[in-house]
Amino acid sequence: MELTGRSILGYGRGAESALRGAGVNPATGERLPPEYSSADAAEVTRAAELAQAAFSAYHRLAPARRAEFLRAIAAGLEEFGDAWLARAELETALPRARLSGERTRTCAQLRLLAAWIEEGSWVEARIDHGDPQRQPQPKPDVRSMLRPLGPVAVFCAANFPFAFSVAGGDTAAALAAGCPVVAMAHSAHPGTAEMAGTAILQAARRLQMPEGVFSLLFGVGYETGQRLVEAPAVAAVAFTGSRRGGMALARLAAARPRPIPIYAEMSSVNPVFLLERAVAERAEALAAGLAAAVTLGVGQFCTNPGIVALPAGKAGDRLATLLAERLRAAPPGLMLNPEIHAAYWQAIAGRAADAGLRVLAAPSGAPASGQGCTAGAALFEVEAESLRRRPELQQEIFGPATLLARTQGRGDMLALARALEGNLTASVHGTEEELASAAELLTALEDRAGRLVVNGYPTGVEVNHAMVHGGPWPATTDARSTSVGTRSLARFARPVCFQDWPDALLPEELQEANPRRIWRLMDGSWSHP
Amino acid sequence: MELTGRSILGYGRGAESALRGAGVNPATGERLPPEYSSADAAEVTRAAELAQAAFSAYHRLAPARRAEFLRAIAAGLEEFGDAWLARAELETALPRARLSGERTRTCAQLRLLAAWIEEGSWVEARIDHGDPQRQPQPKPDVRSMLRPLGPVAVFCAANFPFAFSVAGGDTAAALAAGCPVVAMAHSAHPGTAEMAGTAILQAARRLQMPEGVFSLLFGVGYETGQRLVEAPAVAAVAFTGSRRGGMALARLAAARPRPIPIYAEMSSVNPVFLLERAVAERAEALAAGLAAAVTLGVGQFCTNPGIVALPAGKAGDRLATLLAERLRAAPPGLMLNPEIHAAYWQAIAGRAADAGLRVLAAPSGAPASGQGCTAGAALFEVEAESLRRRPELQQEIFGPATLLARTQGRGDMLALARALEGNLTASVHGTEEELASAAELLTALEDRAGRLVVNGYPTGVEVNHAMVHGGPWPATTDARSTSVGTRSLARFARPVCFQDWPDALLPEELQEANPRRIWRLMDGSWSHP
Repeated sequence: MELTGRSILGYGRGAESALRGAGVNPATGERLPPEYSSADAAEVTRAAELAQAAFSAYHRLAPARRAEFLRAIAAGLEEFGDAWLARAELETALPRARLSGERTRTCAQLRLLAAWIEEGSWVEARIDHGDPQRQPQPKPDVRSMLRPLGPVAVFCAANFPFAFSVAGGDTAAALAAGCPVVAMAHSAHPGTAEMAGTAILQAARRLQMPEGVFSLLFGVGYETGQRLVEAPAVAAVAFTGSRRGGMALARLAAARPRPIPIYAEMSSVNPVFLLERAVAERAEALAAGLAAAVTLGVGQFCTNPGIVALPAGKAGDRLATLLAERLRAAPPGLMLNPEIHAAYWQAIAGRAADAGLRVLAAPSGAPASGQGCTAGAALFEVEAESLRRRPELQQEIFGPATLLARTQGRGDMLALARALEGNLTASVHGTEEELASAAELLTALEDRAGRLVVNGYPTGVEVNHAMVHGGPWPATTDARSTSVGTRSLARFARPVCFQDWPDALLPEELQEANPRRIWRLMDGSWSHP
Repeated sequence: MELTGRSILGYGRGAESALRGAGVNPATGERLPPEYSSADAAEVTRAAELAQAAFSAYHRLAPARRAEFLRAIAAGLEEFGDAWLARAELETALPRARLSGERTRTCAQLRLLAAWIEEGSWVEARIDHGDPQRQPQPKPDVRSMLRPLGPVAVFCAANFPFAFSVAGGDTAAALAAGCPVVAMAHSAHPGTAEMAGTAILQAARRLQMPEGVFSLLFGVGYETGQRLVEAPAVAAVAFTGSRRGGMALARLAAARPRPIPIYAEMSSVNPVFLLERAVAERAEALAAGLAAAVTLGVGQFCTNPGIVALPAGKAGDRLATLLAERLRAAPPGLMLNPEIHAAYWQAIAGRAADAGLRVLAAPSGAPASGQGCTAGAALFEVEAESLRRRPELQQEIFGPATLLARTQGRGDMLALARALEGNLTASVHGTEEELASAAELLTALEDRAGRLVVNGYPTGVEVNHAMVHGGPWPATTDARSTSVGTRSLARFARPVCFQDWPDALLPEELQEANPRRIWRLMDGSWSHP
């Protein structure tokens, strides 16, 4: 397909403007055509208002129609074939195999949510029958279910050009729940974004979705995104990116005349706690597993383990040595874009110069020119007690670096856990007996994370019903939800109650005969036809 | 019981301070002893930190223990007998019968939530079994459920001294979900608050709940409450009160270094739409029903109907006349406190002086001294088209006043619905045929309300599973939840995910054998043992 460099506004296109950006090939530094015109204020408003206009018609479509739309988007993305992968590879330097896997995941997510809204029980229908004879007042018939919030602004992530971008999880969840989407492309992969947006646009046209059910905005700098969050028609915001960016949008969302929910996934160091006997018994395997998790995708995962609690002593020293060897031996990789690359080098240079840290592995100097955004792995070490006193060491370094926090016994490890900020994940490796006696540690970690992994690594995120990809601040701005899996639908919905309605006028999900055949809470008991 | 005038801080009491307030008898204007000392900054911090310290132990209690606690609170409130009602009557001028009903409702809510956490399925447990053979990666075992957020700050409402105050719905939901509570008493009924707080304190002591599971703060002015919202240990805020107060706390909650969820229920005019044939056929009944809803509790309900859309023409005129007669004939009542009383008189004086409105009923002049906080009903009238252009007329007047918006046909009525802000409720009266042809109107109202009532009045709020007492801004700051009914538990919970955990270490709700015998989503299908 030919890329246009212009925003998608409903069924139309944005204008060309003087303010333009372009993707950059991280391998070569070359600017990738076409140039993408920034959406101006009027275009942001138009996208939001088209979404608002589409909302009523879209959310009242039968769930099967919305499911068809999601499936058509997935099919459209697949129809691009290698072209989509190639463009993403050019713009992000992510390897083709990884991109292929990410595409599979993106399409699987769209289809999982399609199936889930067809099943339909996600709306959590509840019915309390009335009683006209009740004294002193007749008891009304009361029914409620989840209904969509309204237009959702989706901000794309740098590190997942498919799965957390234009046609990614938040878009899938919003469209599935019945909310139109205005997506804000990430400036680092605009061509990849335009292709995904075109697939959605084509699916919407072909299935005669109301115009405005989807728009895609391009923008240079922060202004376009800020305007989108401030657009009166926008009812919720989803964002995946930096803490600074997420917090800035969260403050904007809260400062609007009408505050709106924002789900910003921001930063996480995904602590891994290694208990003593596990370290003694499985040092090789743990070093191999950790090295793989730290360097996976050049460390550019939200779930990358950035802090590893490791007991002091010989067994721990051995694991540290093994891990350092593996990280030194890991081949350098290309990072996503020059900004991320520069930030990584700056962060590890800062740690290398930090007198309170020991450097166990570090890439040899900044890359020479012509090498593009190349980065190697880094390993630092600190006493856990010192880490507790230095909250700045809990800041995420986006890239293949981790920090060993050496602990003096279980008490010290527990104290470290309790000093942690909120994270997406926390992991513990231990023998069966160790885990059984680690209740306090597990409890402390549960209060600080969205997902708790035992004897595994946090980097893989399954797309299913039980997954929670979220967590306490600063991992996200709203721990009450997930951006991955079927629970994500709840982000974009609110309960609506119908009192004493004629049966025929109720949404199908609440009609007495239960024509949708969904699970419902009937007078306090779950039931199914 | 003897009132102390001091805050409850865990199992201890706050100090006496020079900054004090007291309740005022709305009937006489007299100050009611004792004087209540404002909690200072250190006491607010102490209450929040005690709550934080209690959190882990409290939320890991068996649900049956938390249920026992809720039931003991209800029993303790009932044991006060008439003394609690008498104190509340002194402080609020609410009639004894109304207070008795509110107490019944408060205790029923505590017991409903106790039963609901014993049943246990509210945690929405989900299990996706793993598959070690999956290629290219083994599939992990993933399980998730709702877990409590942490300490909750509960701000008490002026107009419901029991049901939306110290031991009211938010406290019940937070304690049921596993969250400690720091309640902020309303300055207008501190004695009523201290009694409720004492009942909770006694239940907590007797059942050996961790200290800090409950505290109660008194405060003069806004500072104590602001400090509570800013206390680092507080994880969520619930508030029922004015739009100004709710928005101020919402801005504070969002401006914290760690933003936290806030559920502020603020203002609502609960529009009632009367369709033509219903007006023609049931004018007497509608006038009687509306007059009762407007004057119920001297109009001091969040669900009081403040705007009534009424077709222009003879049938509508007749209903307006009948309603005006009833409201003029309604006996004046005592309002909750001098501030609310003054605000009501000021608001209706403003409307009476508004050249764009017609006055159909108004109390004769401000009350003479010695009459206390007496207020009579008021009825104003405006063209719907004019109301659409004047958003200030959508502001809630807290008291027994309503505004008839005269509509010129269905299109005008629909335009009015679409011009409305968010509300807790919206109601429609119509014949069967009228309702069947009112899809656009019902749709417009659904998008602007939390509860939709057909051929009824919004003032009664059932406590059950399906109820939603919430709605789009400015009715609340967060439409994703309800403050009434069993759905309210979700306010104070977040999903937490357990990956590859040993079965014995999982919360009971997620263990394979399902010892809690709850409904769970197993590999995508709901099931029950």
